[in-house]
Amino acid sequence: MNFEIIEKDAMGRIGKLKTPTGVVETPSLMPVINPNLRFISVEEMRKIGAEIVITNSYIIYRNPDLREYAMERGVHELIESKLPVMTDSGSYQLLVYGDVEVNNRSIVEFQNKIKSDIVVPLDIPSPPDCGRDRAEKDLEITIRREKEAVEIHSEIGDDRLISAPIQGSTYPDLRRKSAELAAKLKADFYPIGGVVPLLDSYRFQDVVRIILESKSVLPPTAPVHLFGAGHPMVFAMAVALGCDFFDSAAYALYAKDDRYLSVHGTKKLDELQYFPCSCPVCSSITPAEMKKLPKKEREIELAKHNLYVSFQEIRTIKQAIKEKMLFELVETRIKGHPYLVAGWRAIKDYISLLDEYDPSSKQGFFYTGVETLYRPSIRRHQKKILNIELEREKYTISTENGDLKLIPAFGVSIGEFYPAGHAEIPDEDNMEDEAFLTALNGLLEFLNHHSDKMFTLKVGNRWIEIMKRYNIKLPENARLEIGE
Amino acid sequence: MNFEIIEKDAMGRIGKLKTPTGVVETPSLMPVINPNLRFISVEEMRKIGAEIVITNSYIIYRNPDLREYAMERGVHELIESKLPVMTDSGSYQLLVYGDVEVNNRSIVEFQNKIKSDIVVPLDIPSPPDCGRDRAEKDLEITIRREKEAVEIHSEIGDDRLISAPIQGSTYPDLRRKSAELAAKLKADFYPIGGVVPLLDSYRFQDVVRIILESKSVLPPTAPVHLFGAGHPMVFAMAVALGCDFFDSAAYALYAKDDRYLSVHGTKKLDELQYFPCSCPVCSSITPAEMKKLPKKEREIELAKHNLYVSFQEIRTIKQAIKEKMLFELVETRIKGHPYLVAGWRAIKDYISLLDEYDPSSKQGFFYTGVETLYRPSIRRHQKKILNIELEREKYTISTENGDLKLIPAFGVSIGEFYPAGHAEIPDEDNMEDEAFLTALNGLLEFLNHHSDKMFTLKVGNRWIEIMKRYNIKLPENARLEIGE
Repeated sequence: MNFEIIEKDAMGRIGKLKTPTGVVETPSLMPVINPNLRFISVEEMRKIGAEIVITNSYIIYRNPDLREYAMERGVHELIESKLPVMTDSGSYQLLVYGDVEVNNRSIVEFQNKIKSDIVVPLDIPSPPDCGRDRAEKDLEITIRREKEAVEIHSEIGDDRLISAPIQGSTYPDLRRKSAELAAKLKADFYPIGGVVPLLDSYRFQDVVRIILESKSVLPPTAPVHLFGAGHPMVFAMAVALGCDFFDSAAYALYAKDDRYLSVHGTKKLDELQYFPCSCPVCSSITPAEMKKLPKKEREIELAKHNLYVSFQEIRTIKQAIKEKMLFELVETRIKGHPYLVAGWRAIKDYISLLDEYDPSSKQGFFYTGVETLYRPSIRRHQKKILNIELEREKYTISTENGDLKLIPAFGVSIGEFYPAGHAEIPDEDNMEDEAFLTALNGLLEFLNHHSDKMFTLKVGNRWIEIMKRYNIKLPENARLEIGE
Repeated sequence: MNFEIIEKDAMGRIGKLKTPTGVVETPSLMPVINPNLRFISVEEMRKIGAEIVITNSYIIYRNPDLREYAMERGVHELIESKLPVMTDSGSYQLLVYGDVEVNNRSIVEFQNKIKSDIVVPLDIPSPPDCGRDRAEKDLEITIRREKEAVEIHSEIGDDRLISAPIQGSTYPDLRRKSAELAAKLKADFYPIGGVVPLLDSYRFQDVVRIILESKSVLPPTAPVHLFGAGHPMVFAMAVALGCDFFDSAAYALYAKDDRYLSVHGTKKLDELQYFPCSCPVCSSITPAEMKKLPKKEREIELAKHNLYVSFQEIRTIKQAIKEKMLFELVETRIKGHPYLVAGWRAIKDYISLLDEYDPSSKQGFFYTGVETLYRPSIRRHQKKILNIELEREKYTISTENGDLKLIPAFGVSIGEFYPAGHAEIPDEDNMEDEAFLTALNGLLEFLNHHSDKMFTLKVGNRWIEIMKRYNIKLPENARLEIGE
């Protein structure tokens, strides 16, 4: 096993991926290195936080000088990297130009020869919403090429990692099929491809579904790469859904265009009067000063900021995983854009998948809004509480002092249950109807489960209002006592 | 006028306060300097972002050496500050020790002699929830002392700023009375006092009410200081409610206790395995390395980080004001803690106050959740739309293609209205019931306003469901057409 998982939260994890050049801690962001261009050195990127980089083997392959150099001395020396190097295959060029001048076997063998740490076959990225026929045909070729690549790798027999990209356009079943077939090949690394156009147009709901459809069939131990995702605004969400790797050309592309990355989105340098950041770049220069720098210098400074803020987000996510507060972090991040909110809410269709992954040993719990209701720990609590032993005949359930407690979001609870008993929840006036509804659903289930016991329910007006509005009737073994 | 307002959003503003030593741009954070202790120099603080600092005149007054030095050369030389210096009066010591060895006149005159830029009378901070009698008695003394201080200042006749603190414990009417009387004195600077115990116990709802009660009677042009607030997690919220100044002893106190500040709360250094920050401190050292530093050095590094992150938040807020996206920033920040959510939602009782302040010229609008519904621009839109001229007899109102558009949150709209027409809103499935309810209330008002016209309403199931659940009946001039 090349990938070891050390710490888990939501569907995210901190892991260690072993590559021929060294071990990489995940979640990890790979800055894209243009082999034609010395811009920011890999050594400098390492200082900013990079543990692995990615470059394009197809660009190297097509340039006789680069090609010869790389064949002789390897890709690491070519781009002056002491870090592991993943190589892309030319699939991106295939998407953009419609054709490439290389076949799958040649580019896979070439990546091996130049000693890439993670090799990518020439998969076909189908565009979003393309015809189903095309998506199916593309996928067939992709799978065939992945098979060929895995065979080449087992023939060569060294320890370079081979990846099996997941395609299938925006068809959930094709994504699932692609992931299933990829998993069967027992590849070392699973990039989810074809998502860049979706990310660029803020179609986060589609991205969430594509990730979760793929994860639903990939083994939990598979390292997953959200190929082409380089904007820090999506990192927390994607990690919480089980992505381990990102790659960023964004840091450089955005800098070239005078754009400044933040976890809440992108700003044009022209719009900035204050830097919302304190990285070494932003704390040594003002936006006005940066605007006056010569273009080339400005581009480098912006690119460095873009890297700093991206790696800061990676560390923030890792810390949240350690604290088992990744859901809380994501719920903060998605408020940066309405489409992120909408995207994240798609998880409600995948609660049982999340439940399989999300560790149950949590101490803290912050209620931050309706998204909190989709966290598996709420549903898990409602199931767990069914099993408490009730010895007496009669019990009171109350929001204040009863035998059993009624808590918004969670439903019925007793003292020692984590995290319900220790959840930080706003006062009832400041919680959404949905939080009471979720609790009431749990309550009904509990009452029905203990149909041989009698319960007296003491709740305030807010609860009663919602029971009326949603036409919720208590079963016969429960009596409502009004006026608390 | 010492205070000039340059840019506005929500109730927040970017302003310039003229002091004898120089101009300070607001919102501004004043690091607290301990006159007994060289820790981080004022010059270094200036580099991190400080434009003004605060120190304690009572500590200087009581120490013969410091006192003599300050009387001779001024407080700026004493603490080696080229920046403006505000001085506190000993009120904090009064709160903590119950008594101080100085009277109001002496400490006000002393602050003037040592050339403080902003002078504070010896006000009485009443603790939260103290008896009403005590709060009233304390307030009476505070007001008397403020009067005396203002008189002393007009006698002296130089340009030092005199402040009039606002007290009144947790009694909204006393806070209002205090602010009203303070405003009558035409002081230069208005600290809202006695909030530290509330902030320390996360009673943000009380803090929000205290600020808004005070702001409701202070002139809009008064510079307001949330005295003792130094944690960056509350800055965005407090600025959006109209606070211009903060002061931070937190940066140092927390560092002493190995605590690390972030906009989402406080972390113990021991709990950190990754720094969620890229300030010059956090990008040059890991938590493991910092834990190994000698106590004194560690304290300084932590304090510097705490300052970096605090000033970063100040710049982030200023940038949000420039972009007129301060509501959006606050709605992101409050998701850091459930009590911040609850605190912020208290604004719904002060919508008309917010409406007075919040500028109407906004281009962007992000819907991020139910808190968005409390923004004045929604209510403002619903009032404004009543005035459109309707020439025909019959109109269709539809969520898709009608003469008039029905938009969640906003209600009835037509193309050219800002920000409704350009709002970024999630799809209907991902919006809360409350957003539809708010829109439907606006719709009813619109239909009733145009009772001489006929309307056909074409909406989807979600709208109809909510109309049923909340028992909303259309007036006679409107007909519901189902099935879109």
